[in-house]
Amino acid sequence: MARIALDAMGGDLAPAAPVAAALLAARELGAGHTLQLVGRTAAVREQLDAQLAAAADRDTLSAAAARFELIDAPDVIEMTDKPSVAIRGKPNSSMAVGIRLQAEGKSDAFVSAGNTGAQMAASTFVLRLHEGLTRPAIATVFPTARQPVVVLDAGANVDCSAKELVQFARLGSVYARDILGRADPAVGLLSIGEEPEKGNAAVKEAHQLLLGAGLNFIGNVEGRDIPHGACDRGPVDVVVCDGFTGNVLLKFYESVAPMLFGMLAKAGVTREQLGAVVHAMDYAKYGGAPLLGVKGVSIICHGKSSPEAIKNGILAGLRAVESGMSRHIEEQLAP
Amino acid sequence: MARIALDAMGGDLAPAAPVAAALLAARELGAGHTLQLVGRTAAVREQLDAQLAAAADRDTLSAAAARFELIDAPDVIEMTDKPSVAIRGKPNSSMAVGIRLQAEGKSDAFVSAGNTGAQMAASTFVLRLHEGLTRPAIATVFPTARQPVVVLDAGANVDCSAKELVQFARLGSVYARDILGRADPAVGLLSIGEEPEKGNAAVKEAHQLLLGAGLNFIGNVEGRDIPHGACDRGPVDVVVCDGFTGNVLLKFYESVAPMLFGMLAKAGVTREQLGAVVHAMDYAKYGGAPLLGVKGVSIICHGKSSPEAIKNGILAGLRAVESGMSRHIEEQLAP
Repeated sequence: MARIALDAMGGDLAPAAPVAAALLAARELGAGHTLQLVGRTAAVREQLDAQLAAAADRDTLSAAAARFELIDAPDVIEMTDKPSVAIRGKPNSSMAVGIRLQAEGKSDAFVSAGNTGAQMAASTFVLRLHEGLTRPAIATVFPTARQPVVVLDAGANVDCSAKELVQFARLGSVYARDILGRADPAVGLLSIGEEPEKGNAAVKEAHQLLLGAGLNFIGNVEGRDIPHGACDRGPVDVVVCDGFTGNVLLKFYESVAPMLFGMLAKAGVTREQLGAVVHAMDYAKYGGAPLLGVKGVSIICHGKSSPEAIKNGILAGLRAVESGMSRHIEEQLAP
Repeated sequence: MARIALDAMGGDLAPAAPVAAALLAARELGAGHTLQLVGRTAAVREQLDAQLAAAADRDTLSAAAARFELIDAPDVIEMTDKPSVAIRGKPNSSMAVGIRLQAEGKSDAFVSAGNTGAQMAASTFVLRLHEGLTRPAIATVFPTARQPVVVLDAGANVDCSAKELVQFARLGSVYARDILGRADPAVGLLSIGEEPEKGNAAVKEAHQLLLGAGLNFIGNVEGRDIPHGACDRGPVDVVVCDGFTGNVLLKFYESVAPMLFGMLAKAGVTREQLGAVVHAMDYAKYGGAPLLGVKGVSIICHGKSSPEAIKNGILAGLRAVESGMSRHIEEQLAP
């Protein structure tokens, strides 16, 4: 019975990609859930009609699409807008309107492939942070040779204190439990050696704080452990780092796998042979990165997201709502 | 006419691997160059004799090996020794003796697969830093889809100031010119967005300083640019970052390619098909990471280095000597 607001104007391929994502989601979601398409209603309606007309399963799909709520938002935040300017200057953007729905009790989650900085700023400003937090964090899921691993922060915070790293550990732990289904998530602290005295100043202090944080803290992990989804001491579910390191690593990972696949294709490996591994490494199926710490659910998708990726963002939002993730974060942070 | 000192006791596989590396290098080096094997002479001699006896090209190889200088060093620094303890407590280790040879004018370069922390400490203490530097930096070469890229610092410095990042840019630029043969190396600053205002505090300040540093500074680069060896503005030769980020990235890269190759092998891609790409991604052929900034040449090899990898470290040391890298660094740093 969740109500998911989708930023129909967000992303490089909007409104076509978000509308297509909504139709993909409509095929999978039960009738009890409501999709709220937020944007310039005329443009959204036009896209919707065009895509419905072209769909093979037009009749059943039209019935599902008839349950969409179209919510008008005349302004559009461009990908190049500065976050602060966007929020103050465009109070009726699809992003601001979509997030406000949650604050007003009219929606349960917000999903966007639009301007990430603006989404972070608007989510934090409108929904506010849970007690005990100074910053929200972006959680991303890294495919590994074993199970996927949550890495956070992936770019919301560039200069992080030890206390903020501990907050990220708490946020990531709840995310791994609620969204990835890990019973007692193993939390590793990203560093340059497994010994507690290895790392920069914030990491060394965070290591000590994490020992007494009541989490399943397994100590430092290194860059080499992430692709394995495990360190010498066992599997890892959550990797904690500052947003500078996390963002560099995320973008590196997103780029290195296609680079290698490209080299292999040139060397004569066929697309069929690459298929399963390319699929395993495909970020799109993890469906966006939640902005953890806000009172509510805000899912950030890549600006270049495909309809499939945005649909998975919608499903991630649904899981966050159904699992009670935001409430569990509040409980985890309670002193 | 270079004299290269090799730490015969350094690394997980010493003395077998360094001795084997010396024999591999002897096959490639001209007779004018001298290899100095530093370690417990009896153990080194025993290894050398055993490996020579087993070599197919025993006769020519024995002639080359006869020109090796065996230099006795009774102490051995273990991989687990603390750097400071190792340097103070074991003044006659192969590492200390090997590096002192340079300070005494009896050698031109030092190569080791031993304890990295101890090598950094001993190199800095004995050889000293060039004027204008506060810290040395470890430069590593990342294979990319295009040309290899120098990434530094890769772990010598965890908390870096903006001025130190600029020093790394100068060091990396000389390295790219002298060792990789780039005429006017393009230097990128690793950040989380290409705009100058993106990044953590040190990176934002370093960006401004680099604009006036007299280098071919091409602005910020992102994690995604490294595997391509290029950003939107063209090819990249040098990527500058703090040693925490660089070390995490290096270890991640070293781990992710084998992980993907393993997944592909399981999916039925044959070893022959993977061959060329595995070779292209093989770090061993880049032969160790120089500790840049010391007055002299100190090449750091992985503790697990194969003979081939250590041999490439020896060749990298030779190139550094022949190109006059240390002198060029001094000139680059001159005000």
